[in-house]
Amino acid sequence: MTTHDMAKAAKNASIHLAAMSTDRKNAALAAVADALAREREQILAANAADLQAAKENDLASPLLKRLKFDDKKLADVVDGIESLIGLPDPVGQTQSATELDAGLNLYRVTCPIGVIGVIFESRPDALVQISTLCLKSGNAVLLKGGSEAVNTNRALAAVITEASVEAGLPEGWLQLLETRADVQEMLSMDENIDLLVPRGSNEFVKYIMDNSNIPVLGHADGICHAYVDAAADVGKAVAIAVDSKCQYVAVCNALETLLVHASIAEAFLPVAQAALTERGVELRGCSRTRQIIEVDQATEEDWRTEYLELILSIRVVDSLDDAVAHINTYGSGHTDVIVTEARQSADRFFALVDSGDIFWNCSTRFSDGFRYGLGAEVGISTNKIHARGPVGLDGLVIYQWRLIGNGQTVAPYADGEASFTHKPLDAPCPL
Amino acid sequence: MTTHDMAKAAKNASIHLAAMSTDRKNAALAAVADALAREREQILAANAADLQAAKENDLASPLLKRLKFDDKKLADVVDGIESLIGLPDPVGQTQSATELDAGLNLYRVTCPIGVIGVIFESRPDALVQISTLCLKSGNAVLLKGGSEAVNTNRALAAVITEASVEAGLPEGWLQLLETRADVQEMLSMDENIDLLVPRGSNEFVKYIMDNSNIPVLGHADGICHAYVDAAADVGKAVAIAVDSKCQYVAVCNALETLLVHASIAEAFLPVAQAALTERGVELRGCSRTRQIIEVDQATEEDWRTEYLELILSIRVVDSLDDAVAHINTYGSGHTDVIVTEARQSADRFFALVDSGDIFWNCSTRFSDGFRYGLGAEVGISTNKIHARGPVGLDGLVIYQWRLIGNGQTVAPYADGEASFTHKPLDAPCPL
Repeated sequence: MTTHDMAKAAKNASIHLAAMSTDRKNAALAAVADALAREREQILAANAADLQAAKENDLASPLLKRLKFDDKKLADVVDGIESLIGLPDPVGQTQSATELDAGLNLYRVTCPIGVIGVIFESRPDALVQISTLCLKSGNAVLLKGGSEAVNTNRALAAVITEASVEAGLPEGWLQLLETRADVQEMLSMDENIDLLVPRGSNEFVKYIMDNSNIPVLGHADGICHAYVDAAADVGKAVAIAVDSKCQYVAVCNALETLLVHASIAEAFLPVAQAALTERGVELRGCSRTRQIIEVDQATEEDWRTEYLELILSIRVVDSLDDAVAHINTYGSGHTDVIVTEARQSADRFFALVDSGDIFWNCSTRFSDGFRYGLGAEVGISTNKIHARGPVGLDGLVIYQWRLIGNGQTVAPYADGEASFTHKPLDAPCPL
Repeated sequence: MTTHDMAKAAKNASIHLAAMSTDRKNAALAAVADALAREREQILAANAADLQAAKENDLASPLLKRLKFDDKKLADVVDGIESLIGLPDPVGQTQSATELDAGLNLYRVTCPIGVIGVIFESRPDALVQISTLCLKSGNAVLLKGGSEAVNTNRALAAVITEASVEAGLPEGWLQLLETRADVQEMLSMDENIDLLVPRGSNEFVKYIMDNSNIPVLGHADGICHAYVDAAADVGKAVAIAVDSKCQYVAVCNALETLLVHASIAEAFLPVAQAALTERGVELRGCSRTRQIIEVDQATEEDWRTEYLELILSIRVVDSLDDAVAHINTYGSGHTDVIVTEARQSADRFFALVDSGDIFWNCSTRFSDGFRYGLGAEVGISTNKIHARGPVGLDGLVIYQWRLIGNGQTVAPYADGEASFTHKPLDAPCPL
């Protein structure tokens, strides 16, 4: 099959998948979980082959770690599927119901988006997570994994496909792509792919965003800020800075820049320096920071950098508005925090910071689908439309308008012989 | 100012516009309505100049009609602004509220998208409508109108800008672009423009969609279908076909193709033919249609054509599933209707037709924001994400996550010393 044929097959399957009942989808998920556990040996053997090839190709050790799919990872994905079964079906929810006139009722009902194209790098567990999220939300999926995981991905995709189709899912709903040329083709297939979800490095996500007309759900940079207001509690500010930077350093919701109000800088910076350097954090400061604590000079480049390591840039600002301007200029619209005891400062910060997630007196690291209670996480989006911040299953659905009448035409309304009632209804769509 | 500077100015203004209160925005709208009425003479004179130039350039008469901005149009846009003032503010609505743990509360709150780029053709009233919709929803706007309306657009934009800035709106929130080169630049300014709303011909909208990485809200084709099921009431089916095709022929929600179940074709087609030809509709049918009524042969091209005139294509199908397959193949995801007395047929049609608007026993012409009771209409979208079908003000907003704590860090949750409650809250975000 050509890539185009695969996308076409996924599109056809998506129509029938969209019509599947919640029970049918949950039964298919249960069958997939069983099959993954049952086919353990085959899957681990495939992964061993990938690991062997990767070692022969001198793959760096963090990549090897991501590539590894062992009993722990298998148990995790099976657990993930089981909790997914327990989540409410995001499809078929009536979002609004309106009587347009007696006997003419309008409903807005959630439905799947259609075909999701997912491009992920080395982690094979991502294949299981994303394909089961698509299944639960009734979307067909085109998957392109890292070439170094080709054997593991084939094994996983085969197990998922077989178990789900046997459980009644339409053939073709899951398609595995394997080459870089496939990805290039995917990017231009806006007729058959409705949404791209790229998971991987910043450069990779940026490349996808810049080279496709298909909408992209995701984020490139995560340059998160904490602003320590004039009215901050120094103890809270230090604890939040340490947790935001150090709790897990290589993630998009980790802190990269600390903005400090000039009037609190002398009280805050020395305490923060002690706490952060104790945790091994290298600090880089603006000139005013360096008049208070001894750190390296931060450059313009620092404000634009997502370190993803134990480095933190610090800038002293004269006002909350200067902090906001810095965030809106250099930030990536991900997660930004104000530390203050003054409600009106928090209010102004919330009103003016243009980011997906804005926090008052807590760590940037809370910015996460599981912590938010969304259940499963599709990813984190810095888009300005559709879905923003941590995205749960409802980021994989859209809605359809359903109008139910009994022969009504528009002419009498246009001619003034009939008029609309536009009365809210308190019932879900009957079909 | 360069186009880039204008977009940058709009972006800066958008931050402050997003923070405006409902009262402030409504007061600005009222000031705009007053100013438009007050500056009547200046606006009509500008339009007279455009009309004069258009006549000298031999502009076609339908274009002249669209270009005309007279007292009736002025009264319409002023009425539109007044009803806009009465609508609820789409910004600042709490969509969900969750206690993550005692004293750590998460809110999802609606906010403006940011900067909307609107490209419209000759109708100057579109300038007023779209800029006031943007104002109400707290978005800055870059406007590019038709070059033949340059004087009218300048006059309208100047009046709206002056009145709104005087009423407290941030300078730069509305920017008027004038050249084709400006549009080209707009399409690549994804840093400062968050959403494009193109209004105009299919080719024009398609061009915008194909040539920008910025998300586009809108629709190109509107190829709407009515399927007359085996269990249809012939009288209803004829009335719906006539209204859908003829009530207003040059619009995206008008009917273009009639699909007829073979078992009802002999009963339905002659009656439909009589009613439709009486209204001046030219019919084109498939071979099976032509065995029953005398009409021209429809070609493959017909199934893909949005006529926007009194032409209707007809195809006889063997089953509901064949009708669905035709719609999902040739349709544009706009509005599709089933006429049937059998609930299970409607059920299957609703489950399988992948369109923004699906109707049972009523005219395609109901597919419209005002008829749906949405108040103001931004446009009709055939997108698969963000907003679908007729889009009201809520298509111009997105949401922000707001987390309010008291110094919480993630470490204790990650270390198992604390756990999340994820309890739904019944209160709006306090800031």
